[in-house]
Amino acid sequence: MPDIITPTPRTKIKRAPIRAEYGLDTIHAILDAGLLCHVGYVIDGQPFVTPTCYWREGNRVYWHGSAASRMIRAQEKGIPVCFTVSHLDGLVLARSGFHHSVNYRSVMLLGEAQAIDDDDEMMRALEVFMERLTPGRWAELRPANKQEVKGTTALWMEIDEVSAKVRADGAIDDEEDYDWDVWAGVVPITTTIGEPEDDARLKPGIARPDYLSKFTVG
Amino acid sequence: MPDIITPTPRTKIKRAPIRAEYGLDTIHAILDAGLLCHVGYVIDGQPFVTPTCYWREGNRVYWHGSAASRMIRAQEKGIPVCFTVSHLDGLVLARSGFHHSVNYRSVMLLGEAQAIDDDDEMMRALEVFMERLTPGRWAELRPANKQEVKGTTALWMEIDEVSAKVRADGAIDDEEDYDWDVWAGVVPITTTIGEPEDDARLKPGIARPDYLSKFTVG
Repeated sequence: MPDIITPTPRTKIKRAPIRAEYGLDTIHAILDAGLLCHVGYVIDGQPFVTPTCYWREGNRVYWHGSAASRMIRAQEKGIPVCFTVSHLDGLVLARSGFHHSVNYRSVMLLGEAQAIDDDDEMMRALEVFMERLTPGRWAELRPANKQEVKGTTALWMEIDEVSAKVRADGAIDDEEDYDWDVWAGVVPITTTIGEPEDDARLKPGIARPDYLSKFTVG
Repeated sequence: MPDIITPTPRTKIKRAPIRAEYGLDTIHAILDAGLLCHVGYVIDGQPFVTPTCYWREGNRVYWHGSAASRMIRAQEKGIPVCFTVSHLDGLVLARSGFHHSVNYRSVMLLGEAQAIDDDDEMMRALEVFMERLTPGRWAELRPANKQEVKGTTALWMEIDEVSAKVRADGAIDDEEDYDWDVWAGVVPITTTIGEPEDDARLKPGIARPDYLSKFTVG
């Protein structure tokens, strides 16, 4: 597995190449910070972009859905997809409109999704997903039954034709604009995990598990 | 302009139709809460999903970019695009793996983007974008020059072939699972605006403008 991705003509970043990142460590870190991806796929010439939950294991990303959903049925046939994850980190207010920008981290991965057709393998993949977010929870749950396993499909894609783009910087103005009478700087944007809310029908005597306090996104 | 959208076969929500929203007020509110969209488009059979900033005015969404970018050059030709906005609002932890879910608000809009080819109209559109986020700032900035205007393209799409999907609920378990010995509930996820960070080269005597304190996302 290479530590640095060699971009293809399709993933080579042409605009602002200074923001391009092809290191696998960076790509994995951006993916691991997220929960929601946007998957693009084409049906009858029309692109669709569906937000859905995902997770990474090794050099693969996984996502899942109802086996009956349009997204899953289209993608499991091995059509080209684009898997994008992005984090908006801040608003960059410059001294001219043109140099306004945002700070962000994003990954774009191209390829064809593979469906997991073995039930045990799919259950193991879902366990990895849940254990990554809430370690220890999988074993606490009411186990999946056959209908649930049949009704769920997990897809995966190798992280190979991929690029990342990162902007983490202040305003970059034209030299002659620094004297302009206007505020400039960065307004940070973060994703925050709130206080867990007990279910209205929570069984008496069930305490809030420790893993909830360790959960992070973003 | 209808207040309720009539879904087409492409935008009619088939999975979990109870989550579907076709009211324009709801669709506009979801759009107005966001800053970053994911736009899908197809080049040589390969879908691409690009995160970019957007804004709404009336019943149109707008986004912009460098006139030289692959995204803009492809889309300004009038190819089919999918414009998706999503907000992740929480993690729903149920008593079985199958009933785990997320709370979210999302909009998916299909159509063909139109490029604004009049420079004045484009500048006016960009002013709307900035004034929505930071009212009063546009007039404070160093005005755009001709090269900057030439180098920027704004695109727009009418909000017509569109649907929204919203989940804002607790865990919904199978009746026989409510007695299971496991915590259930919702972990809220919110987008937070941090304290503005002054630019390292901020001109002495420039105070932090009021509009920064009113800025919200999510």
